[in-house]
Amino acid sequence: MIKVGVLGARGRMGAEVVKAVTEAADLELVAALDLGDSLETLKSTGAQVVVDFTTPDSVMANLEFLANNGIHAVVGTTGFDAARIATLEKLAAANPSVSILIAPNFAIGAVLMMEFATKAAKYFESAEIIELHHPNKVDAPSGTASRTAELMSKARKEAGLGAMPDATTTSLDGARGATVGDIPVHSVRLRGLIAHQEVLLGGLGETLTIRHDSLDRAGFMPGVLLGVRSVISKPGLTFGLEKFM
Amino acid sequence: MIKVGVLGARGRMGAEVVKAVTEAADLELVAALDLGDSLETLKSTGAQVVVDFTTPDSVMANLEFLANNGIHAVVGTTGFDAARIATLEKLAAANPSVSILIAPNFAIGAVLMMEFATKAAKYFESAEIIELHHPNKVDAPSGTASRTAELMSKARKEAGLGAMPDATTTSLDGARGATVGDIPVHSVRLRGLIAHQEVLLGGLGETLTIRHDSLDRAGFMPGVLLGVRSVISKPGLTFGLEKFM
Amino acid sequence: MIKVGVLGARGRMGAEVVKAVTEAADLELVAALDLGDSLETLKSTGAQVVVDFTTPDSVMANLEFLANNGIHAVVGTTGFDAARIATLEKLAAANPSVSILIAPNFAIGAVLMMEFATKAAKYFESAEIIELHHPNKVDAPSGTASRTAELMSKARKEAGLGAMPDATTTSLDGARGATVGDIPVHSVRLRGLIAHQEVLLGGLGETLTIRHDSLDRAGFMPGVLLGVRSVISKPGLTFGLEKFM
Amino acid sequence: MIKVGVLGARGRMGAEVVKAVTEAADLELVAALDLGDSLETLKSTGAQVVVDFTTPDSVMANLEFLANNGIHAVVGTTGFDAARIATLEKLAAANPSVSILIAPNFAIGAVLMMEFATKAAKYFESAEIIELHHPNKVDAPSGTASRTAELMSKARKEAGLGAMPDATTTSLDGARGATVGDIPVHSVRLRGLIAHQEVLLGGLGETLTIRHDSLDRAGFMPGVLLGVRSVISKPGLTFGLEKFM
Repeated sequence: MIKVGVLGARGRMGAEVVKAVTEAADLELVAALDLGDSLETLKSTGAQVVVDFTTPDSVMANLEFLANNGIHAVVGTTGFDAARIATLEKLAAANPSVSILIAPNFAIGAVLMMEFATKAAKYFESAEIIELHHPNKVDAPSGTASRTAELMSKARKEAGLGAMPDATTTSLDGARGATVGDIPVHSVRLRGLIAHQEVLLGGLGETLTIRHDSLDRAGFMPGVLLGVRSVISKPGLTFGLEKFM
Repeated sequence: MIKVGVLGARGRMGAEVVKAVTEAADLELVAALDLGDSLETLKSTGAQVVVDFTTPDSVMANLEFLANNGIHAVVGTTGFDAARIATLEKLAAANPSVSILIAPNFAIGAVLMMEFATKAAKYFESAEIIELHHPNKVDAPSGTASRTAELMSKARKEAGLGAMPDATTTSLDGARGATVGDIPVHSVRLRGLIAHQEVLLGGLGETLTIRHDSLDRAGFMPGVLLGVRSVISKPGLTFGLEKFM
Repeated sequence: MIKVGVLGARGRMGAEVVKAVTEAADLELVAALDLGDSLETLKSTGAQVVVDFTTPDSVMANLEFLANNGIHAVVGTTGFDAARIATLEKLAAANPSVSILIAPNFAIGAVLMMEFATKAAKYFESAEIIELHHPNKVDAPSGTASRTAELMSKARKEAGLGAMPDATTTSLDGARGATVGDIPVHSVRLRGLIAHQEVLLGGLGETLTIRHDSLDRAGFMPGVLLGVRSVISKPGLTFGLEKFM
Repeated sequence: MIKVGVLGARGRMGAEVVKAVTEAADLELVAALDLGDSLETLKSTGAQVVVDFTTPDSVMANLEFLANNGIHAVVGTTGFDAARIATLEKLAAANPSVSILIAPNFAIGAVLMMEFATKAAKYFESAEIIELHHPNKVDAPSGTASRTAELMSKARKEAGLGAMPDATTTSLDGARGATVGDIPVHSVRLRGLIAHQEVLLGGLGETLTIRHDSLDRAGFMPGVLLGVRSVISKPGLTFGLEKFM
């Protein structure tokens, strides 16, 4: 039995994690904390792995506490830029026995979509991304779309692919989307939708489309539990759930 | 037998029209003209209906000649702005027995897509358009996408719908597409594609998607022939093939 | 204010109706009944319209009670075959001031999908339906898919369309789907899905696809409320929400 | 320069291969043969690799001739069952320096689709395949769909996955598709379509869809040329272009 703590336990994702850990036969929930609760509880309850679904404001202090106390971390909180990653690299180096997994997306299907899109990118002249979400989302493009575009763009560059074909000379502002790396990304916000992404790849006479639909928050839990079970045996900082698949 | 002439007969669309008219049992091809040929041939051969797939530079003079000689016109040439439409209105008024059909899209499926999108628009809070074309296309969005957006936007306004829900506060430039009327429009340009459009409508707990795929120029011919057969009995200026469906 | 009663109020759909009626400013919930409750309550509370989401076993007796007491009905319960429809026709004839709406699907998007599919059917040589649902569904194809196929098949026949092109000579059993009317229907059952349907229409060089995604039971409520508000002014038996759109 | 011969050079696929080889800077077309031509020409012209797009009736004799004369083969002809594969295994063993590539699909996108579908299969409870083709196709399901299903079914079994969830109790004959391995496969035949396949994978709260669209025969040529260039360095019998990707 792995002893698991949850930070952000009263949030929507955190509450799902509490439920999923409780129901898993090989995991024991020892702490479910939220804003205002003391992190010391994690020590006293002997938590081995802590899942963090808090906020960009709280997560860095949480991770420092965890690393300094020898507790592994599985992090779904967003907002990790280059500066934060650099800080975490140092934290990990100072605590070599501790594992930290930062995952921008715990949906196994989304992780596979990113992996497949990256692998396929070098075989096609053209690539674009359409991501579609509910209209309450505040950022565009989504973090998953941006990360997919960066990975694909890197793969294209490594394969020596040049600029994509595009004869557009007259265009309404915004029609051709945002550009991340060299990949056009289009963001749809529509009532009735939840979280969806489509990667389109095109070559002579054929197209390949990889689409992920996330219809329920419960869809993230298999990925979170995979992270909890795998993180212990991989000390250091790991970025992306795909490293464990 | 209706006597049919074709202008732009050596162009890609014109050549298809020549073929389709020749193969139709109830139509007789009497003239297939292109740049440099004299329009007088249309009179001497007794053309009753002329199909024009030429260029924005030629089409206005062609239509003036046709109207002044009592010949009906079916027009697939693009580039009709408000000023040109006004000119044609006058031309039609001065020649009340003559019929002119201007159609931005002769694919019957595309016409139905526009009609359905317009009809559905008032029932949904959100609506966006994604159009996807081969990378040799020079304009974005496509004419069909713009026209669809205008029709939907008008229908939304008439139904008293307010602004669409959209909580976006942080956005990369272009991510949320171009806006035509009040409809976001996204243009994808991908090797391997031909001409495709997807209209997305979303309301509480449900979405409706209407998609048209045009995979071969031959797909426009049933609509062109429908126009040729129907235009005679509808004197005046008609905009859109849907008026004949 | 229209006084509304709900039968099957403790069921999943009924509970949503209770919530939606309560929240609607122009409707008053006067009775929320389920198995074991007396229908007499509907009379004593002055219910003008009753929404029935019960079971095939209960619905006929409910409708008889409602009609005989001058109460209009909006029915989402399934299982209406030709014999039951005939019985309801007689019931309606005997109570000419009473309105009964039977709707196989209250999602406005699904109703539009069926209407558009029916209208488009006559313009295309080929048509097939793919319906996709969660794996707990017990019947295949879905009621909505069967009804769509029947409507399209009737439209094809009325337009004088012949058999669809299909050169299949070697086929694994079931590969080409079930046939309803003359339309092939394919049923997908997949974990993660909710309720989805795609109507595919194909002609020379083009295809038209109409897709409905139902992602939340709440998506049926706007249609139920539209039924409640519209049914009063249409005495007699009405089949399908589209009659009110 | 690799010296290349083509068998079936007057067929639709063969003619494309002739064109593609001629246009490739690193390949030299030395023979373009069809029914009635002597295979001896391949020897006299010094062909190193021969591409075979003939018929099930001719291909086995062709391959025997090639192997016995030390010529490598890239084969797009269909109809290889277990008995034929066994015969080829022997042929390859008797000619250890010769390479034979049998590929059921040369579209790079289709090969990637199969690879991704196989890799993803073990992560999802449910999986189904929809393949969609023009109505002149004689077999259902397509060879590509059957092979995809077999690969996915094998991956599911190796991962210890049990039966897919499916509560269907009442079903019209054919509605749930054909079953290949344990994967339901649905075949759509629609005017306007060319060759398309969609692999659907579903788990708790999410679905992953991988779709390939083949819109032009030219789309197979990059894969054929990849085969021609790679086959020389891989003696023996190879099944599937993915071995070279």
